[in-house]
Amino acid sequence: MSDGIYTVSILVENTSGVLSRVVGMFTRRAFNIHSLSVGTTNEENISRITIEVKGDALTVEQVTKQLSKIMEVIKIKILKNADMVKRGIMLCKVKTSTKTRSEVLEIANIFRAKVVDIAPSTVVIEITGGPSKLDAFIDMISPYGIEELARTGMTALERGSNTLKI
Amino acid sequence: MSDGIYTVSILVENTSGVLSRVVGMFTRRAFNIHSLSVGTTNEENISRITIEVKGDALTVEQVTKQLSKIMEVIKIKILKNADMVKRGIMLCKVKTSTKTRSEVLEIANIFRAKVVDIAPSTVVIEITGGPSKLDAFIDMISPYGIEELARTGMTALERGSNTLKI
Repeated sequence: MSDGIYTVSILVENTSGVLSRVVGMFTRRAFNIHSLSVGTTNEENISRITIEVKGDALTVEQVTKQLSKIMEVIKIKILKNADMVKRGIMLCKVKTSTKTRSEVLEIANIFRAKVVDIAPSTVVIEITGGPSKLDAFIDMISPYGIEELARTGMTALERGSNTLKI
Repeated sequence: MSDGIYTVSILVENTSGVLSRVVGMFTRRAFNIHSLSVGTTNEENISRITIEVKGDALTVEQVTKQLSKIMEVIKIKILKNADMVKRGIMLCKVKTSTKTRSEVLEIANIFRAKVVDIAPSTVVIEITGGPSKLDAFIDMISPYGIEELARTGMTALERGSNTLKI
């Protein structure tokens, strides 16, 4: 079985306990959740949980079977890397001086990132992309000094007209 | 006490159980988590959990006090709306025909959204912003038919040089 990062997309009824139950299912099996995001969908009372999890294919499949037994879980799918669009957003507060600011902004431009806040000694940069783009940006900007960093988990949709609908 | 959406930023040690414990703390008090995102930071083994929660100021403060008792929780702060940058990302699969495609792309342009996948009968649009911008986009695009929608929770950073660092 091949070890790797698996992206699991889960449609759930939006109740206060469901997230805790879904996360607990991974925790009890000592699965390391790499990233998680949860947000509402266009259907009322339906949320989508997207989890990136590290493991082998067999175990990930077993967990999804267990997940499907949770009452509020409506649909689950393991998304394939080749067939999906996966995106997250990162906010990064970088140290700047009058000397380094233009260099920092140049790197931001190359990554098509946006400056969303500016102060005398810092800028906050907003950047979106898949995991490797965000990591590459961190590598480039680290030498200037990252003051603070916040990123969402990844969210994902299948390419083309396939859907994970109710 | 004023009811509203509160944004709670939590730095935690990145262990397999911490997310489950943090979420459980909200669930046990029947707090409705409006959105949640969790991602790694620039510090090794430190993750940041951002939670949007609906409630009154007093109860939210009580929950943060409880949260601070969890061993893996390093720092917590309730962020103020005026002092933060808050962003999420949304992927939206919209029905299109040769007739409607240009209209859909025009709306995407107005919102500075990007087309990240295109198929004969659908497009996938990536859009970033705060909660109200994302909701406004959904309102505009709904008449064309949303096939599928995935959004991350919101992530947030304080403006200026204030930080929530270890």
